Amino acid sequence: MEATEKNNWYEVCVGLFKKIAGEQYVLLKEEDLKNYDHDETENLHFLPDVVIKPRTAAEISEIMKICNEYKIPVTPRGAGTGLAGGALPHFGGVLISMERFNKILEIDERNLQVTVEPGVITEVLQNAVKEKGLFYPPDPSSRGSCFIGGNISANSGGPKAVKYGVVKDYVLNLQVVLPTGEIIWTGANVLKNSTGYNLTQLIVGSEGTLGIVTKIVLKLLPHPKHDLLMLVPFANLEKAGEAVSAIFRAGFTPSALELVEIDALKIVSKMIGDNVIPVTDDIAAHLIIEVDGNHMETLMSEMEAIGTLLTQYNCGEIFFADDTQQKAALWKLRRRVAEAVKLDGYTIEEDTVVPRAELPALIKGVKALGEQYNFHAVCYGHAGDGNLHIRIKKEGSPYSLNNPEIVPSLKALFTLVKKLGGTISGEHGVGLVQKEYMEVVFDAANLSIMKGIKKVFDPNNILNSGKIFDI
Amino acid sequence: MEATEKNNWYEVCVGLFKKIAGEQYVLLKEEDLKNYDHDETENLHFLPDVVIKPRTAAEISEIMKICNEYKIPVTPRGAGTGLAGGALPHFGGVLISMERFNKILEIDERNLQVTVEPGVITEVLQNAVKEKGLFYPPDPSSRGSCFIGGNISANSGGPKAVKYGVVKDYVLNLQVVLPTGEIIWTGANVLKNSTGYNLTQLIVGSEGTLGIVTKIVLKLLPHPKHDLLMLVPFANLEKAGEAVSAIFRAGFTPSALELVEIDALKIVSKMIGDNVIPVTDDIAAHLIIEVDGNHMETLMSEMEAIGTLLTQYNCGEIFFADDTQQKAALWKLRRRVAEAVKLDGYTIEEDTVVPRAELPALIKGVKALGEQYNFHAVCYGHAGDGNLHIRIKKEGSPYSLNNPEIVPSLKALFTLVKKLGGTISGEHGVGLVQKEYMEVVFDAANLSIMKGIKKVFDPNNILNSGKIFDI
Repeated sequence: MEATEKNNWYEVCVGLFKKIAGEQYVLLKEEDLKNYDHDETENLHFLPDVVIKPRTAAEISEIMKICNEYKIPVTPRGAGTGLAGGALPHFGGVLISMERFNKILEIDERNLQVTVEPGVITEVLQNAVKEKGLFYPPDPSSRGSCFIGGNISANSGGPKAVKYGVVKDYVLNLQVVLPTGEIIWTGANVLKNSTGYNLTQLIVGSEGTLGIVTKIVLKLLPHPKHDLLMLVPFANLEKAGEAVSAIFRAGFTPSALELVEIDALKIVSKMIGDNVIPVTDDIAAHLIIEVDGNHMETLMSEMEAIGTLLTQYNCGEIFFADDTQQKAALWKLRRRVAEAVKLDGYTIEEDTVVPRAELPALIKGVKALGEQYNFHAVCYGHAGDGNLHIRIKKEGSPYSLNNPEIVPSLKALFTLVKKLGGTISGEHGVGLVQKEYMEVVFDAANLSIMKGIKKVFDPNNILNSGKIFDI
Repeated sequence: MEATEKNNWYEVCVGLFKKIAGEQYVLLKEEDLKNYDHDETENLHFLPDVVIKPRTAAEISEIMKICNEYKIPVTPRGAGTGLAGGALPHFGGVLISMERFNKILEIDERNLQVTVEPGVITEVLQNAVKEKGLFYPPDPSSRGSCFIGGNISANSGGPKAVKYGVVKDYVLNLQVVLPTGEIIWTGANVLKNSTGYNLTQLIVGSEGTLGIVTKIVLKLLPHPKHDLLMLVPFANLEKAGEAVSAIFRAGFTPSALELVEIDALKIVSKMIGDNVIPVTDDIAAHLIIEVDGNHMETLMSEMEAIGTLLTQYNCGEIFFADDTQQKAALWKLRRRVAEAVKLDGYTIEEDTVVPRAELPALIKGVKALGEQYNFHAVCYGHAGDGNLHIRIKKEGSPYSLNNPEIVPSLKALFTLVKKLGGTISGEHGVGLVQKEYMEVVFDAANLSIMKGIKKVFDPNNILNSGKIFDI
């Protein structure tokens, strides 16, 4: 990236930005800029030179044309809940906050679609469509604060992905402002589309490097009427992993299948002062299993059958969450694991993903690497998808980018993941913090093609440059 | 495309191809080449100069390197069942037939995945995984003869797409030979992946223009244990369309929801000499509705509830297919509609797709355009997805590319489709026959980006050049 020096554009362009977006929506004071210098990734702070809060695609188009002309680095930002540093303005320049794109434009009940702006909070969207009996399944742990636009940027998942898929499976069409200022729709508002290259799917998960999403058309489903939840303790991690595979093999597709290792559970239970899940010495991990559907009797018989199956894998006593309150308590515990272990000093939430049956091998491998590289790891995540979050604690080595104390252990971890048929990120994205490891999982030809695509969209390399890879 | 003249490469390269693939797998005689000069698109014939039938990705890599050096046009070909001319060697040159890539490499029961070569017939794959209790849902009408590689090329769908999605929803990872000869894997064998740009989804539906797929990793599901099928006549096409929307709105997700207009039904019934569906004068269209799942009682109650709902839309007497034989007869009828109307003189199977509630407006619009442009149209297709196949008959105007008698009516049709929120192709692809209409649904900026991506993969524009768009 050859960014233009700030003193070559600042004076002229700030005035133009104010004309485009309105003076009150262009922030310049350090105290204001500081609110935008970080996300949920540990220990990373980069101050932008300017923050702009536009309201329309046309405004963003004008801003992009100026930034493209002056080669000003531009960082698009949602709610700042990312875990890979994807929304950090590490080259300074202009940060475009999408916070004013906060309208649900249309819930189309005839077609089971919703058109929404990217700054809508995911849970707000979910609740709005649920009121109409409709269902938008992707539900990252941060759903109470993250933006739907950020979810598209990272191709987010969450617990329901195991049955319902991830964000990419719900995005039908996107309005995008290109780095050069053109505004396009990537596709059409249809469920099937074989018309030209799939630009929609290319934008999803591209971490704001190819364009700025300004409108989103999502597919919705009828909301399932019922769900049942159970918690299953295992004395042995590998048996828990085998049980996960067996559930699918037996023909069941749970709507959530989460794993929480006992170390993580102890920490989160302590933090929220809750003992909804019993913590005893003979337990290595819990599975949280949910089924959903429209027929309660069918669900009851499915739950019973899954329970019977699990006894073959030496599970402990199964706890059925009987009512809404118990379910909520269980989910609260699960959703707050990341926060709790982070507060306990476990840094860098890794987002490894492997074929689901390889989960026991991955967990075993992580523990072995911990001994080799002298770190302690806690594991939790979406076992049904093979998507395992790992946080590590290493005495005397707080996390920072390219920390020579940390890099070799992560390289070894991702090499293992690759060997197991997996990859670096299942739902967080690569951003700043994982880009060093892209070569572990991709050949030079892959990276060369990705960089070529980046150049097609962004010839001057101004938009979220240096995320995913360097050019 | 500036293709090298045949006499500049033929003598030298044919010898090289024989060394790479083996003499018996390089076809040069016109009688042999003729088998590869057409697909299922009407009236299009283009003879390749050479047909090569390689067996490995390494062989294809060597062939591509030579073709790239000599700038020889290369056309990859599956089973030749395409409906958009995507596999036709319209610039001559080398045709690479994937027919020897015919192995199912591994059915991974632990992870519910299958690794398969692209020349495996779709139905063969479906049956092989079904024997293990597993399910690969995408089922184009041609599944008994088409190749899975071709399905990936077109991002095929079929009746089950309404519940289970299309090919893109099952492809986890692809081994691809790039036009320049490198061999890459596009992703990883995982259910969630946010690691770099989604090259997997970019290849799916790219109609063999970006690379030649040599290995495919697909996601599988547990096979549902039961299904139920019913046939519902409607006196009014628009009521049938409204009923389709109402089914989803009421919370049902059928595993198939097909529409057959009465004109199409008459023709197919006559062809196969079957009166499994009653053809009476007061019927305008039929819906074929299937539900599937693991609990027969649940399915029975769903079918009953759907039936009750449909009576609100003035449906006629519902026919329940009681046994395997009746179901098979109904599906046979549905699957052979395209063939029957084609034989009856209806040419060009259009593949329009709109938001599903717009289906009545589309059908009405098609009929109106027929009066305006003096053609007769028959409609059938995947109503649950809003994917409507339309074939037209115009006296004195047999189909050919860019026929001035036909082009204006298709432009008008696609303009209507776009206005309804839809697009040109839901599952067939653009290929040769629809590329003239890309500008109806895409802006210049979209097309410019697509062409830029093509150049990144294929700098010399040798691979299936002139499909989807001209460069």
